[in-house]
Amino acid sequence: MRTYKLTVAYDGTRYQGWQRQVNTGRTIQGILENAISDAAGYDIEVDGSGRTDAGVHALGQTASVVLPGTVEDGFFTGSVNQRLPEDIRICEAHLVKNGFHARKSASGKIYEYRIDTGRRPDVFQRRYCYHFPQELDLAVMQEAAEHLKGTHDFAGFTDKKDETSTKREIYDIIVSGQGSSVTIRYEGTGFLYHMVRILTGTLLETGARRRTAESVPGILQTKDRGQAGFLAPARGLFLREVHYGQRGR
Amino acid sequence: MRTYKLTVAYDGTRYQGWQRQVNTGRTIQGILENAISDAAGYDIEVDGSGRTDAGVHALGQTASVVLPGTVEDGFFTGSVNQRLPEDIRICEAHLVKNGFHARKSASGKIYEYRIDTGRRPDVFQRRYCYHFPQELDLAVMQEAAEHLKGTHDFAGFTDKKDETSTKREIYDIIVSGQGSSVTIRYEGTGFLYHMVRILTGTLLETGARRRTAESVPGILQTKDRGQAGFLAPARGLFLREVHYGQRGR
Repeated sequence: MRTYKLTVAYDGTRYQGWQRQVNTGRTIQGILENAISDAAGYDIEVDGSGRTDAGVHALGQTASVVLPGTVEDGFFTGSVNQRLPEDIRICEAHLVKNGFHARKSASGKIYEYRIDTGRRPDVFQRRYCYHFPQELDLAVMQEAAEHLKGTHDFAGFTDKKDETSTKREIYDIIVSGQGSSVTIRYEGTGFLYHMVRILTGTLLETGARRRTAESVPGILQTKDRGQAGFLAPARGLFLREVHYGQRGR
Repeated sequence: MRTYKLTVAYDGTRYQGWQRQVNTGRTIQGILENAISDAAGYDIEVDGSGRTDAGVHALGQTASVVLPGTVEDGFFTGSVNQRLPEDIRICEAHLVKNGFHARKSASGKIYEYRIDTGRRPDVFQRRYCYHFPQELDLAVMQEAAEHLKGTHDFAGFTDKKDETSTKREIYDIIVSGQGSSVTIRYEGTGFLYHMVRILTGTLLETGARRRTAESVPGILQTKDRGQAGFLAPARGLFLREVHYGQRGR
């Protein structure tokens, strides 16, 4: 038995998200499983580090696969990649210790949200950013972000309440901009359903001066989704990296 | 009568090129004419600075339109843009002197060709660059490019021989690279059918050491297409700017 860790990039535009679904072939997990099974000659399953929503992209999603034996070099990055559509790609494949599980072993994740504040949506970036044609005060956004760092109950920042725990730790949020392109980077232990997109909607509202940075701690305290910002669209969101072991590794 | 100059950006991936065709609605010119006619309430025609092939992109294609009278501010960038698919966008519209013609008045053009030399095609750049996974010697490519600058008969660098004249002037070719991304920028009076893509194929062959920089003058002298390089694919090519008036203006 051999366990492999895969790093996968995908353009989420055409897909119903990561998670395999019964009546659609258009999920990343489903397409990956089919391609690997086809290359291997027997059915295999792939475990992701977590789900990504329909339309969300990944620069470095991770997945684990358990195979009955070793495969030749280039099995994943060659044979499997050849069977994948060009908007899904295995970037790296490493043999890891048995017991490794992409989700259970993960210690942290980095997400990036990209915003285009230009007057007109950029023709080439339109699938990969959210067009929000307003002047943003990045300093106010960063100030609001500071309130969100640390360990909190983020129940006000999710659209799904039945999680065992809604407590999470955010290590860092970095707001940066160059010209009409603004990026918000989130690093934390893990994120709840819709959490990064609601955090982004909230930060955008502060940047556009529709709310103050000081309104943010109240959302954490009341745990009231109604007080948080809008759900920023999937197209601007990228799962950048998944960390294993110590923080930041 | 009023003449407008439009600057248009498009992602050429889904289109049969710039030029209107009888049996397809999938050309940039055709779609632009339909959108403007629809917004104006009468049929109008659009003249481009030149054709772009199927799959070629534009950051700054220009077009001229003659209307019977003035239109309100925001007619093109508002009403017309709303009628366009999101991969075609009018970036600017200016009232110009009557007599201005996007093609006939043009004095120069800048094209850019983008190459991805990474081992595996980048999931997010795949529509906007040519994946050529080989180490390129950029200095050799620049050396080859120097032979192409100036006024020459470029008959060896086109796939269409029935032009009135195949003489053109190239002001500059700049080869630049960062990491696995290589860009070749071409500036000249105008370019023949397939010329930028054949120039690029030729330069890539020198960079990959399949031919020498010194083989390039021979192609100009013999005017033999068979001696020039391969036709680089459309997806890496961008029409960046069209100049009017003095060189570089």
